[in-house]
Parts: sequence; C-alpha cells; structure tokens
Amino acid sequence: MILANDSSDQDIKPSSKLSRKELYDDFKRVRSFSDVLTEPLLTEDYVIQTMTDVSPTKWHLAHTSWFFEAFVLSEIYKDYKSIDPKYTYLFNSYYVQVGERHCRPKRGLLSRPTVNEIYDYRNYVDHNMEKLFEELDDKIFEAIAPVIEIGIHHEQQHQELILTDIKHVFSENPLDPVYQKNNYKSFEINTIFNWIKFDEGIHYVGNNGDTFGFDNEFPYHKTLMQPFQIASRLTTNAEYIEFIEDGGYQETNLWLSDGWSTVSSNNWNSPLYWDKVKGEWWNFTLNGFKKVNPDEPVCHVSFYEADAFARWAGARLPTEFEWEVVSSNAKKEGNFVENMNFNPIPNGNFVEPIQQMYGDVWEWTRSPYSPYPGYKTLPGALGEYNGKFMCNQMVLKGGSCATSKTHIRNTYRNFFSPESRWQFMGIRLAKDAE
Amino acid sequence: MILANDSSDQDIKPSSKLSRKELYDDFKRVRSFSDVLTEPLLTEDYVIQTMTDVSPTKWHLAHTSWFFEAFVLSEIYKDYKSIDPKYTYLFNSYYVQVGERHCRPKRGLLSRPTVNEIYDYRNYVDHNMEKLFEELDDKIFEAIAPVIEIGIHHEQQHQELILTDIKHVFSENPLDPVYQKNNYKSFEINTIFNWIKFDEGIHYVGNNGDTFGFDNEFPYHKTLMQPFQIASRLTTNAEYIEFIEDGGYQETNLWLSDGWSTVSSNNWNSPLYWDKVKGEWWNFTLNGFKKVNPDEPVCHVSFYEADAFARWAGARLPTEFEWEVVSSNAKKEGNFVENMNFNPIPNGNFVEPIQQMYGDVWEWTRSPYSPYPGYKTLPGALGEYNGKFMCNQMVLKGGSCATSKTHIRNTYRNFFSPESRWQFMGIRLAKDAE
Amino acid sequence: MILANDSSDQDIKPSSKLSRKELYDDFKRVRSFSDVLTEPLLTEDYVIQTMTDVSPTKWHLAHTSWFFEAFVLSEIYKDYKSIDPKYTYLFNSYYVQVGERHCRPKRGLLSRPTVNEIYDYRNYVDHNMEKLFEELDDKIFEAIAPVIEIGIHHEQQHQELILTDIKHVFSENPLDPVYQKNNYKSFEINTIFNWIKFDEGIHYVGNNGDTFGFDNEFPYHKTLMQPFQIASRLTTNAEYIEFIEDGGYQETNLWLSDGWSTVSSNNWNSPLYWDKVKGEWWNFTLNGFKKVNPDEPVCHVSFYEADAFARWAGARLPTEFEWEVVSSNAKKEGNFVENMNFNPIPNGNFVEPIQQMYGDVWEWTRSPYSPYPGYKTLPGALGEYNGKFMCNQMVLKGGSCATSKTHIRNTYRNFFSPESRWQFMGIRLAKDAE
Amino acid sequence: MILANDSSDQDIKPSSKLSRKELYDDFKRVRSFSDVLTEPLLTEDYVIQTMTDVSPTKWHLAHTSWFFEAFVLSEIYKDYKSIDPKYTYLFNSYYVQVGERHCRPKRGLLSRPTVNEIYDYRNYVDHNMEKLFEELDDKIFEAIAPVIEIGIHHEQQHQELILTDIKHVFSENPLDPVYQKNNYKSFEINTIFNWIKFDEGIHYVGNNGDTFGFDNEFPYHKTLMQPFQIASRLTTNAEYIEFIEDGGYQETNLWLSDGWSTVSSNNWNSPLYWDKVKGEWWNFTLNGFKKVNPDEPVCHVSFYEADAFARWAGARLPTEFEWEVVSSNAKKEGNFVENMNFNPIPNGNFVEPIQQMYGDVWEWTRSPYSPYPGYKTLPGALGEYNGKFMCNQMVLKGGSCATSKTHIRNTYRNFFSPESRWQFMGIRLAKDAE
Repeated sequence: MILANDSSDQDIKPSSKLSRKELYDDFKRVRSFSDVLTEPLLTEDYVIQTMTDVSPTKWHLAHTSWFFEAFVLSEIYKDYKSIDPKYTYLFNSYYVQVGERHCRPKRGLLSRPTVNEIYDYRNYVDHNMEKLFEELDDKIFEAIAPVIEIGIHHEQQHQELILTDIKHVFSENPLDPVYQKNNYKSFEINTIFNWIKFDEGIHYVGNNGDTFGFDNEFPYHKTLMQPFQIASRLTTNAEYIEFIEDGGYQETNLWLSDGWSTVSSNNWNSPLYWDKVKGEWWNFTLNGFKKVNPDEPVCHVSFYEADAFARWAGARLPTEFEWEVVSSNAKKEGNFVENMNFNPIPNGNFVEPIQQMYGDVWEWTRSPYSPYPGYKTLPGALGEYNGKFMCNQMVLKGGSCATSKTHIRNTYRNFFSPESRWQFMGIRLAKDAE
Repeated sequence: MILANDSSDQDIKPSSKLSRKELYDDFKRVRSFSDVLTEPLLTEDYVIQTMTDVSPTKWHLAHTSWFFEAFVLSEIYKDYKSIDPKYTYLFNSYYVQVGERHCRPKRGLLSRPTVNEIYDYRNYVDHNMEKLFEELDDKIFEAIAPVIEIGIHHEQQHQELILTDIKHVFSENPLDPVYQKNNYKSFEINTIFNWIKFDEGIHYVGNNGDTFGFDNEFPYHKTLMQPFQIASRLTTNAEYIEFIEDGGYQETNLWLSDGWSTVSSNNWNSPLYWDKVKGEWWNFTLNGFKKVNPDEPVCHVSFYEADAFARWAGARLPTEFEWEVVSSNAKKEGNFVENMNFNPIPNGNFVEPIQQMYGDVWEWTRSPYSPYPGYKTLPGALGEYNGKFMCNQMVLKGGSCATSKTHIRNTYRNFFSPESRWQFMGIRLAKDAE
Repeated sequence: MILANDSSDQDIKPSSKLSRKELYDDFKRVRSFSDVLTEPLLTEDYVIQTMTDVSPTKWHLAHTSWFFEAFVLSEIYKDYKSIDPKYTYLFNSYYVQVGERHCRPKRGLLSRPTVNEIYDYRNYVDHNMEKLFEELDDKIFEAIAPVIEIGIHHEQQHQELILTDIKHVFSENPLDPVYQKNNYKSFEINTIFNWIKFDEGIHYVGNNGDTFGFDNEFPYHKTLMQPFQIASRLTTNAEYIEFIEDGGYQETNLWLSDGWSTVSSNNWNSPLYWDKVKGEWWNFTLNGFKKVNPDEPVCHVSFYEADAFARWAGARLPTEFEWEVVSSNAKKEGNFVENMNFNPIPNGNFVEPIQQMYGDVWEWTRSPYSPYPGYKTLPGALGEYNGKFMCNQMVLKGGSCATSKTHIRNTYRNFFSPESRWQFMGIRLAKDAE
Repeated sequence: MILANDSSDQDIKPSSKLSRKELYDDFKRVRSFSDVLTEPLLTEDYVIQTMTDVSPTKWHLAHTSWFFEAFVLSEIYKDYKSIDPKYTYLFNSYYVQVGERHCRPKRGLLSRPTVNEIYDYRNYVDHNMEKLFEELDDKIFEAIAPVIEIGIHHEQQHQELILTDIKHVFSENPLDPVYQKNNYKSFEINTIFNWIKFDEGIHYVGNNGDTFGFDNEFPYHKTLMQPFQIASRLTTNAEYIEFIEDGGYQETNLWLSDGWSTVSSNNWNSPLYWDKVKGEWWNFTLNGFKKVNPDEPVCHVSFYEADAFARWAGARLPTEFEWEVVSSNAKKEGNFVENMNFNPIPNGNFVEPIQQMYGDVWEWTRSPYSPYPGYKTLPGALGEYNGKFMCNQMVLKGGSCATSKTHIRNTYRNFFSPESRWQFMGIRLAKDAE
C-alpha cells in the first residue's frame, strides 16, 4: 500500500506496527495538534496563497481531512457521503485516479468554503473516523490500518507546511504580523567546530522495516562508501554572513550554472526573509521581525546557496548516505515543533561529538533524489505517483523546528527542487578524507 | 482642483453646486450604500483578488476611506492622525505625490488588516468627517467642498467595482456562490429594432459646468458631425448568439488585428462568464449560474468583440459624440444599481423612440479616449495623473446596472482598454447615413 | 480595389491617374532602387531578424515581388506559375484570403531560399511584368493599373523598412558595421524657434482623389478645428538632451501611464541607438557609431517619449489634422531617401516660416489611428484587412530620411504602436491658442 | 589542467599520452574534418540560430579556433595578436576568467564576421598552431600538449553540435533542405531482443588514466552494484510507435511529474522531428524528410520520454555504472560520424550478445549527473567551471552517429537536461534482477 503526499512520493510496507489503541491515540493527538497550530490565526489568515508553492491554511486543513475520506472512509463504507461532493474536487492535491483536481495556483482564489465550514468538515470526518475505530471488524481494520498510519504522517507533513506557508504569507504583509512571541530561553552556546572522520566501508542504508517508512526509503540495501569527514554542527548565521560579506553572491566561480541563473534573475543576495536595515541584517520570523542572531543555524537557503557556501568554505555538502551513516547512532533529540519555538536555535549541546543532527533545519545533501536500487512502484491510487518526483530534486535530511519529533527518522528522505527555500532549510558541511 | 480615481482621470470646476446640507446628505447616503452592497458577503469573501484588475472588497472599503483622509482631513487638520500610518501606503492606489504605494497585483496577499479592522477604520474616518461637516468654518468648507464632492463620486465608482470584482471572485469558485437571488419581475418586452437618423450638424459636446463633472469632460466645445444612424435599443443575447453560431469568433476578417490576437491567445468563443452546457448557453451572474436570457442586453464583451459583432452586422459602433448628441434629450432612466438587479434586464420601454440609453450596460464607442481640444491638467496631487490614461483605451457611455443613478450623466466618459470585459459592458450599433 | 501592406491598411480609388508609360517608368525606377539600397550589403546581412518588427532584407526583396505575382500576374494570367509554389506561403505577409502564411517572428530562421535564389525570383517577376506592360490589351491594363500602382507604393514602403531594419540588425552587432559613410555637407543652421498661430476654422481634410492615396486617407471630409499654435521646426537633439538631463525619464508625472510602464520595464533613458560614452552621448547610425549632433532633429523616440517631452516643454503634440492643415501649402521638399543621407540633418531652411515639415523624421501626432467618418472597407483579398490596424496605434505625418519623395504626401497617414521607435520618428511641438 | 566545453565540464590528467607527431596528426585530421562537415552548406546556412540551444555553424567554426588562441597561443606567445580583438568577446562561450562574453541567445543576430572572414580566422589560427608545433621547445611543448589535446576533443564535441544544430535549422525550413542524400546500404537486420543478466558485485568505474579523459570521469573508484538485467539492443522505432499508439503520451501515470508538465505544455506526442502524414509517421533527417524506418533505433527523445517508455515497457533505464560495466569489454564499434550516415541505422550485428553499445544514439541513463566521490575542481580559467553543470542534468553514454569514433570511450559521461532532445538520443532498457 502506498501514499503520495503533496510534495513527495512514498511507499510503505503494507502492515502497521501499531496497535489499534496506539493508532487511535496518534490519530487524536495529531489531528488536535493542527488546532494548536492554527490557534494564533484570524479568519482572513486562512485564505491567502502568496505563491504557487504556498497553500492557504484552510486548504491544508481540508486536504488532510479529505485524505481520510478518500483513502479510508470511502474504501470501507461503500455508501459513505462527504458533506459536499465538490470537496473531492477542491481538496484533492494530485491523485489522478481519484478524479480531477482544482488547479494548485488557484487555491488562493477561493473564499468558500469558509473557515467555519472547513472546521465542520474536519469534525464530520473525525466523527466518522472515530466510529470506524470503534466499530470496525478486526480483520478489516488490520488491512486499513497502514493507510490510517499514512494519513497521520501525511497530516504531520501538512502541519509543517501550515507553518512554512503562513510564515510566507505574513512576510508579504507590510504590517509584519507576529504568529507567536518568541518563547525560547537563552543558554550557553557551543560554537566549537570540528571535522569528524569516517572510514571507507560497506553500510546498509534505507529503512529495514522495523518502523514506519515511506516507500522511497525502501529497499534496505548495501552501499560502498568512500572515507569522508563531516562537520560537528550546523553552519551558523555568523558564518553565512562572512560568506555574504566576502562577496559570495557576486562570485560566479562559486556557483553551479543553474544556481547562478537563479541568483541573478531573482537578485538574491541573502537568505529568504533577510533584509539589511541601516547596515544590520534583520530577518522575518514567526516570532516577528528581528535582528539576525549570529549563533543560530542559517536557515531558508536554497540548495544552490548551500552548495556555493560549501565551495567558498573549501568543503562540500554531504551525500544522503553519509548523513544517514553519521546519524545512525545519534539520539533523535533536537529543536522540534513540539518545542513551539518555530525557529532554529543556537547549538547548546556540549555532550555529543556531533550535534544538531535532528530538528532546527532540514540539511541539504548533494544527492539528487533518485530511486534506490530495486525500488518498486506499487499498484492503486495511493501509489500512482510513486517515483513521480524523482527528477530535478535534492534530498534533505533530519527534520526542522517545524517537524514533529514523532514524524522524523534517520532514513527519512525529504526532497525539494534546488531553488526552494521557503522551508526551514540549512547547511551542514562535509569533505573528502585528506 | 482635480481628482484621479483608480481607473479614470478627472477634472472638476473648483466649486461645488451643492449646499453643505446637500453634500452631507450625499456623503451619508453614499457611505452607507457601501454597507448595503457588502451585506451579502462573508469575511473570507472580502480578501480575494482573482486577477490584477480585481481588488479585494476590503481594499475598496479602505481605499475610499483613505481618500477622505488624504485629500480632505489631513489637508484641513494639520495634526490629523490616521489609525495606522501604514494604511497610507496600503490603500493609496496611484497618487505618486502622496507617497509610495503597495503594488496593485499584491492586494490579494494581505490578510491584515482584517475586515473588522477596516470597518473600524471606516468608522474612524466617518466620525472625523462628520466633525468636519459640523464644525468647519464656512469659508474653508467652501474651498474643500469640491474635493468632498469628488470623494463621494469616487466612492460610487468603487461601489461599481465592488460588484464587478466580487462577481469575478465568485465566478472562479466551483461552488458557484450566489451574491443575491434575482428580484426582477418579468414584464412585456420590446424587441423591435429601428435605425434612428441624425443629420449633419455642429454640436456642443462636453460638460457645460452646470453640474458636477470630471476634468476629462471639459472643456465644453463645438464639434462638426457627419450624418449617422443609431440603433433604437441595445444588442440582445439572442442577436449575439446568432453571431457566435454564424462562426463570428472563427472569422478573421471580422476582427481588428489586435482583437484577433486577443481572441486567439485567450481562446475566447463567447462573452465572459458564458459556458455551454449540453448545447445551451448558461452564464454566471450575481444572481447565480443561469440560462442565458435571449432578451437581455448582451454583456461582458470586450471592445474587440463589440467591434467584430458590429462588422458582422454590417454596422459599426457609435462615436462618443454621436452617443452624446443622441442622449442629450433622453431622460436619465434605466436599470441602475438602485434597482438591486445587479444584472441587465430586457427592454421594457415602448414609449421612447430610443431606449436603454442609461443603465443596464456601459456602451462601447469607437472613440479612443483622448483629450478634448483645450484640455488642461491642473496642479496638485489630486490632479497629478490627469490625462495619464489617455492612450490605448476606448470610451464607454451611459452607465450600467452597477452604476448609481446619481453618478451618471450624458457627458460622463468612462474608459477601459479594448480587451477588458469584466465590467458590465455591452453594444449599441450605429452606421453611416445612407 | 484595395491594398494592405505590411504595416498599414489602405484604400484607393479604383483608377490610376498615370499613363501606361508613366507607370512603366515608375515600376522600373522603383524596382531598381531596391538594388541601390541593398548594394552595400553582404550575403550574410540579408538573413538576420533581430526582433519581431524587423524582417530580413531578403524577405523584403521577395515579398515585394510576391505582391506582383499574387495581385497582378496570377490575376491576369490564369496559367501563371511561380518559380517555386512554396514562395507564396513564405512571402505572404498577412493576406489571409491568399492562403496560409509563414509565421512573422520566424522569418529569420530561413537560410533558404538563398539571396541568389531571391534575385532570380525578382528577375523572373520583373521579366513577366515587363511582358505584361508590353503585351496587355488596353482595357485589361486599365483595370489592373491601379493595383500595379499600389504595388509600386508598396515596394517603396518596404524600401523604408529595408533601411530601418538593417539599421537595427547592424546596431546589434558589436563590430559596428557601417552601411554607408556619411555624405552630407555641413551648411548654415537655423536654430530659431517660433510658435506659428492658426485660427479656429472648418477645413477639408483627407485625400480629395486628385492624386494617389491609400484607402485610410478617404473620404475627403470637413472638420471643425479649434485655434492652435505649432512649432516652426522639429525638436533637436540638444533640446531632447535638456529633457534627459532634467530627469525627464525619472519623473513619473510627465508620462502617460502606459508610457511609464514601458519606460520602466525596458529601462529606457534615451532614444533608441543612443549610448553614453565617457559622459557624452553617441548614437549608432547607418553612417557609423557617432557623437550625437545637437542640431539634428531628435530621432528614434516612441510616442510615449514624444508625449512626455512635450509635457515637459509645456506643450503638446499636434493632432493629425492640425499637421495636415499646417502643411497644406508647404512645398514637398526636405531630406528624403533620394538624398542618400540615411539620417536626419540639421535645419538649413531660412526661407519658409515653417520648416522641416517633410523628410528627416516622421512626426508623431496625438491622434489615435481611427477611421474617418464614412470610411468603407472594400471587398476582395487586397482589401480584406482594411481598418484592421485601427486600434492602439498613433498617426505619424510627413515622411523621413528613409522615405521616397515620390511616396509621401500631405494626406499620408502612417501609423505605429506608441512604443515603437525603430523607424525614423521624431517630434514637432504644438499648443493650444493662448 | 582543466577544460570546460560548451555543455560539459571536464578534467584531464595534466599530461598527454600522445607524441608530438601524433598530436599534430590528430590536430590536422580533426581540424580538416570540420571542413568536410560544412561542405554541403551554403553561406546563408552558417548564420541561423533556431533556438537558444542551437548555435550558428559559423559560430562553432570560430569558437573552436578561439579556443586554441585563448588557451594555447596567447599562453605561449605573450605578444600574440588575434585578427580582431573583438573575436575574443564574440566567440568565448562561458569562460568568465577569460573576459565578458556575447550573450548566447544572440549568436544568430550577427551577420558579421562573414563566413569568409571566419575561414580566414581559422586559417590564421591553424597557421600559428603549425608554427607552434614546429618551433616550440620540447619542455614547453610537453606542458601545453594536454591543453592542445583538450582543444582537439573540444572541436570534436562541436563537430557533433554542428550536425545536430544544422539539422534543427533545416527542420524549421518549409523548403525541407537536404544536408546529404542517404548513403547507407541495407543489410540483414537483427531484431531479436534478450535480457542479459549481471550479478551483484564490486566494480571499478571511471577513467583509470590510461587514456585521455575529461575531469568528470575521475577519480577511478570502486562501487557496489546490485544484480540487474540489460537489453541486448536499442529500442526501435517500431517499439516506440507501439508506445505512442497505446496512448503513452496521454497516460499521466507513466510520467515523472516534471515530464508530464513538459509534455503537456509543449504538446509533445512523438519524438522531435516526427510528423504524422496521412496516417503514417515521417521524420525529418539530415538525409531528407522520410518515412520512419521501424527497424532504426528510436532517436530524438528526451529523458522524460525514455523514462516513460521504460515504465510502459515494465522496465527502467540503466544507471550510468550499469552501462559502464556492461560495455567494459565491448568492442568500440558502431555507426559513428565517420560512416557519414548522419542517422542511426538498424541493428545488423548477429555476433555479439549485446549490440549497439556504441554509436547510433546516446543512451539515456537514470543517473543524475553528479560528482564522483573525491572529484576535485582544478585551478585556472580552463577549470573554472568544473562541476558547474552537476545539477538538473542526466548522464548519457556511448556516443551517436554524430560522434567521432576517436572521441568516445567507455567512461565518457555526456549530460543534458532531461527535456533536451535535439541531440541524437535514444533508449536502452534495463531492469532489476528477478
């Protein structure tokens, strides 16, 4: 059984490791976390789409509910009826077999259904899902459980998008709306930078099936890796400002050819959301418009900028497998969305040799998003688009301050096109063995 | 003193014919009519911009209030303070001397200020204006009165835009929202078509200053006109369908060169808002999605379509002066916005020889929008853009079902670019004398 | 019988004033003048198209020959055969009834037919035309004579385009090719500027049929004109440089709205072909890259620039009828293409009260290109596009240094879209009576 | 020392395996082969640029000469002077350190220098190179030899482009010019299709330095490969027509997301140069416009089409390493440019188990063009763009009917963006082990 979400394609082993009770608790917890995230918003905030990549908040809320209707409820209950049959058309993202879809760039042209109507829709779906959890025959439940599990992970992906998208919406508004006042407390900061060495070796990579995984993490397989070194922590704003001030954005030689075109035609000279005010760098955050903190990990850079920075620094980006091997024994701790910072924070870890592997920012790798050897597309509507995005995109690892801790794992492959930068994306350096 | 509104340039005699009391009553009446027009809307409806020409309803409500702040209140009260100083930036449309402006195509990217905040802003302005009406010294009042009068007419222009813009917003929504259920009652319909002849002659055209007028209606001047004939009524949907079915949209020879490019590159084959459903023409209206009524005046056609239709019919469009001379003795009666139909209605006039000169639809003329001989641009911010639009636009006459009766007059020159069709625009034929 | 050429629509009285001998002499003279104009070119120069408006020289040479095939030879000789049947497709410009056409922007993508093949084609057509002149029955000849006359005028129009187009082609080449070394001799220069006054009056305008004219010059008709004043000479480069240095290109208030968009999006800050080198203005001409001569008429400005300049100068552009009335008694003398200067020259006329009405530069008027009252489109392929361009274009009068003296006349209406500037276009000021 | 050519980035070992005599012979042979390839062209054919990817023939001839001036002659002779100093600007492709460049999409706007002038330029450079071969001190020669070797390979790359570009130029011409009448003789055709199996294993890939190689082929390194199967021959036109007729271009599920956008927005429904005439497929070739030969390898398909075809066929494309391992023992024989067919030909090999590995068509792999582990960018102008194109491109292997036999090798990595199809590009299928 397979699932494709709005910006990825994924495949799962067709069984769930979770009990009915665990799944129900996850469902309740994740669904209600969407309410937590939208609490600071006013009605008008739910409606806006500021660029094609961004979807209105109310669309995300409806689309994640539609998912349970399309792939669970109407699969189980043949007479299942949605509140409004047109919702299928409006809130499908790209599943062709499920029918026609409303055009993505036009999601911001819809005043109706209203926010209230969409909450009614969510309640309607939740109500039906709860009934299903209660009453469904065990055998049938077991068959549908993996799809429900996907639906839960799917909603977590859209929770991350709700945050990155509302950040973009607010950033376009001259009134500088604040999503949430900052709540992180200052602490001692570890700025030490080390290169950590790894030897040549044959490693297993990919998901071994012990936990949930999307299809693109499979099959689990061996790979031969050359020796390499990796940075002990993320690149900071202070380091990135050095790159800017050294003329990094003006030096053609540092850039990939497509990167140079992108930077030139968009007149980029700093990360997204940065602005120079009276000689000082400020940036727009979900906590307001603030001075750039030099100790925070740099964020909202494209692959092109990450790659040019690495070249400037005499280094390179890691491959996805280097990152995976490095992190394979790391604890999954970090600045996740559960911390409610909604922004990366400085490195406060003095204990581990390698820090900040999880949370804060997605880490760009130099690996194009490609199928693993033996990767298979599975049949059916959920799987129709598996592999569909495996071209012109780069892999990112580790999750961000907008990712749920329960959503991320070592083998997770996020991917975006190399010019994207509205997600919380940053840089960890690597280099070849000397 | 001069005023330029969002889509016109205008000039007034620097004195008002109205008493302080009359002006106050007009102010109150027109301001509150904006509330009437927005009554059917829900919060989300106020936010959307579906194309560059369209502005969100809340923008219109704020911009018309801003006008009184920028050109009246802050002129009179040197210490006048707006609720939020950024509103000047957000709600200025194009008056450069008043400062920088928020970019037009981005009006739909703003969730804040909210609808409630904009109503607070309107109340704040109204309150201050009422104070001004009460307390202002007569001499100063007399000087500012013509600007207030312009402000009132300016708001009436935006009331028309509120209707045409929300129509476009609703038309993009697959849920087919209804602005108001139709309330017009059927009656006997006059479909008789006559050519009415006019002789050669020298006529005075333009505004003689007895009533209010925008600057583009001045100076009042003589013109020599050749003999011509004009249609006794507007072109109907039935007649336009004949044109469509005769292959009008496929016959290059009927079209202006720029018209053919426009039709081809946009794949137009009918008026805006029309859709063929199972062999029958339907159209989206503010009263819902309905079958095209053959007896209604055709509406939402561009100049190019009006011109091609006229050529197909062996006729042409009238010049603006022909229209002005024909209407000079007509009663200003018709289907105006006060009727609350929000749609053109069939011709029910059996009395006058020439019908439907006012209301229903703006009538395209073949006259490019140009300055009258002796036209002068006046000094100051209100006048800074006079004449600015006198290129690549065509003149329309007579007002529509979205125009206030108290706003329109014989000499009124509306103008739009020849490919525009989201206003209520239609066709009256003319031809040369035989 | 009617003719439309590549950039105009035209109508003629269906008889020629010229004898068979006169027409034959004109035909020979005009056809061979095309050879004179292409003499400085090398094979590669004939092939290039630098923008959509520009056609390759070899296309012009072929298209003007095709005209005689399509509208004369194949009309007279039913068994007439072209050298290659595909030429009809390749060298038709826009006469739909004559069949499909090769797409205009792709004219520069054709290496074949070669230049030699096109000269063979011209000779083939000339040979057949001469046979026709010799042998045709008088009665048939009389019927076809007006079409031949149009064909001759049509070729003269394309001779002007050969010059303006090769100028654009050469200007794009970093090697600065020179078409012809300058041959004009310096003389005493008249820089005196006067306003010449004209009273209100009723005038006849348009072509009265005594000479050849295109259809857009008809019908001859009365018009009532207000009093006005006109500049005694053309605007010079020195005057235009004052406008530039006074910040004319930066001052929004001086510009039409569409003009400001055009100037901003193209980053215009001087006429086409001008370049500032070490603080001095230079311009690319057909005589080489040279310092701007302050006494020459300014050239290669768009309507928007002419209009903004006039506003800056406290004046306006003349209407087409003002120009026509002013020039009605002027001698048709000036710097025409026969002078072989290929560039406007300073005013050397100390005799006439109004100078430079003809030749040097086409003079922008403020008149949109519209049909005269009573204008009629005639039937048949030559007339199929009459009136087709009567939208979004402005009228120019008087001819230029690239126009044949035998081609221009008082009533001639040239027209281009307001942003065009690759023709030899300049400025004469006018203003209202004081 | 490093070299980057117009569409690749390359790296060489800084010494040449060739003797001075061998290098000289290669230089003479390759330079004169450019004359052979341009022999069928007329002057006008050298000038045209039909799309940004295409360069005019005369540009290729000049650019390959410029290369020897910029990187050899002016390095060796400090007082070296080019015929025209502006040629450096005009014929540089993208080497920023060598100075500014004429904009790529404008290469077709240059009539000068003429074709004759460019041949003079080539002769001038050849003359100076011969002098260098004769007179240069051995030690210095040895240092510059690898750059000369690169220059020779660089010219071979542009010889391939001369053919693919003139094919595109001719294909745009309605007169269907023929570059060369077909000269291939029919023979017995092998249409048998087998899957050839390969086991898991660790293999060395990349260039071991025994022969010339570009920098992107280094370092030679180990890789671990999973078992796989590969097609014994190329995909034929007959097989691709089956895909078309089965609705392959209409079936979203078969396509990558970016592929579907590309196909939809360009309305592709067959390979480039194909046209359906009266129910039969024809294609434009350098031998004329001909019926599609079902037995020829399919050609002029993009990566997207190759990938969709493979999915439709229940297979996938090979990785670049799979292709390299398969071909490592194959003889370098095939239909190369030396055969002067200028078109792929049917499979006539009944001897080898795997056929058509070299020549005919470049074979798309599923491998994104990425740096090998340990890949290094070298210093200097020739190397300034190494790695510059390693994003958004796919690797192709094996050479085509437009590639020189002396240019291709097992480890050669060609690369193009996935939507390119004007090169001779085709398909070999692969699949996972069962």
